[in-house]
Amino acid sequence: MADYIEPLEILIEQFRKLPGVGRKSAVRMAFGLIDMSKEEVQRLGQTLVSARERIRQCRVCGNLCESELCPICADEGRDSGTVCVVEDARALMSIERVKEYNGVYHILGGTISPIDGRGPEDINVASLLSRVSAGGVREVILATNPTVDGETTAMYLSRLLKAYPVKTTRLAYGIPVGGDLDYADEMTLLRAIDGRQEL
Amino acid sequence: MADYIEPLEILIEQFRKLPGVGRKSAVRMAFGLIDMSKEEVQRLGQTLVSARERIRQCRVCGNLCESELCPICADEGRDSGTVCVVEDARALMSIERVKEYNGVYHILGGTISPIDGRGPEDINVASLLSRVSAGGVREVILATNPTVDGETTAMYLSRLLKAYPVKTTRLAYGIPVGGDLDYADEMTLLRAIDGRQEL
Repeated sequence: MADYIEPLEILIEQFRKLPGVGRKSAVRMAFGLIDMSKEEVQRLGQTLVSARERIRQCRVCGNLCESELCPICADEGRDSGTVCVVEDARALMSIERVKEYNGVYHILGGTISPIDGRGPEDINVASLLSRVSAGGVREVILATNPTVDGETTAMYLSRLLKAYPVKTTRLAYGIPVGGDLDYADEMTLLRAIDGRQEL
Repeated sequence: MADYIEPLEILIEQFRKLPGVGRKSAVRMAFGLIDMSKEEVQRLGQTLVSARERIRQCRVCGNLCESELCPICADEGRDSGTVCVVEDARALMSIERVKEYNGVYHILGGTISPIDGRGPEDINVASLLSRVSAGGVREVILATNPTVDGETTAMYLSRLLKAYPVKTTRLAYGIPVGGDLDYADEMTLLRAIDGRQEL
C-alpha cells in the first residue's frame, strides 16, 4: 500500500492538472477536499463549471470577459490608438494595476518559441496585424515578458510592424525600483547601464 | 479595474478555499482552468464530486476508505495488538511508506490545542479508549507530529492510557538520517543527545 485509496488518487490526479500544482500540493488539496462536506464539494464543482461557462474572449483584443467586448475595449475613455501587446490576460492585469496606461490591449495568447515549435500562426498575430492595418493605431507597445521567448516574439512583431505606419515601442529594461543592486542579475544590470538616462 | 472579471474572481475565491493555496497560486490555477475546454472543466467538476462521494472513514480506525473497514484494519496479517496513533491519514501514509510497521492505526483527526481551543472532545480520543478497553491491545504508539500541539496531545493521551494495561510509546526524536548536523535546529540536537544510544 504505497498509494492512497483510488478515489483519493483520482482527486490528486485532477488537481495536478492545474498549473503550478505538484504532487505535494495536490495531496494537501485532496485532503482539504475530503474535509469539506459532500454538499460543499458539490457547490465547488458547480461553481467551477459555471464560472468557466461565463468566461469568453473579447472579440477585439482577446481579453477575458463576459460579453462580446471586454470592459477596456468597451470603454470610450480609453485611447484605442495605442495598443499594448501582452502575452496573456495576467500580464494585462499587471499593467492595469499600475493605473497609468490609458490605451487598449492585444492579447497574443502565448509567444513564438522556435524551441517548443510554436510559430506565429499559434498566437494572435494575424488579428493584431488586421487591427493595425484597419487604421487608427498610432503606437504598438510590445510588452511581452523579458524572457527569451518574449524577446523573440517582440523582435518578430517589430519586424512585421515596420510595414505599417505605426510607432513600435518596447517596455524599458532596468533595475527594479526598490531593489538592491546586489540582487540584480548581470543581464538586468547590463540593460540598466545600456539604457541609462541623462538627468 | 483592479480585480479580474467576476467569474474569474469566483474561480480564484474557490481555489483559495483549498489548503495551502494563496492568492498567487489561485490566480494561476484559475487561468489554467480557463485554458481548459468547457467539457474538460465539466469532467473535472464531476470527478471532484464523485471522488468525494466515494470516500468514507473506517469504522474502526478512522482511516479513509471506500468500504466499512479500511484495507489495513481488514488485513488479517496485521497485528491488531499494536495501535499507532496518528493525527491524520497523511501521517498514516507516511508510516505505511516505510513498509516496516505491521500493526494497525488510530486516526485522531487533529490535535488537542489549548491555544486554538481544541479539546480532547474535538478529536477521536473516546474511540481510542474504547478500543483499548475492549482488550487485545498491547501497545499504543503515539505518533503525533513533533509540534507543540502534537506533543501536548501525546502527553495527554499517555496520561489517560496509564489507566489501562498497555505499553505506551512515542516515536524517537533525533537527527534526520542523511541530514547534516549543521542544519539541525538546537531542539532536535538536544533531543538527539538526550536520546543517545549505546553502540
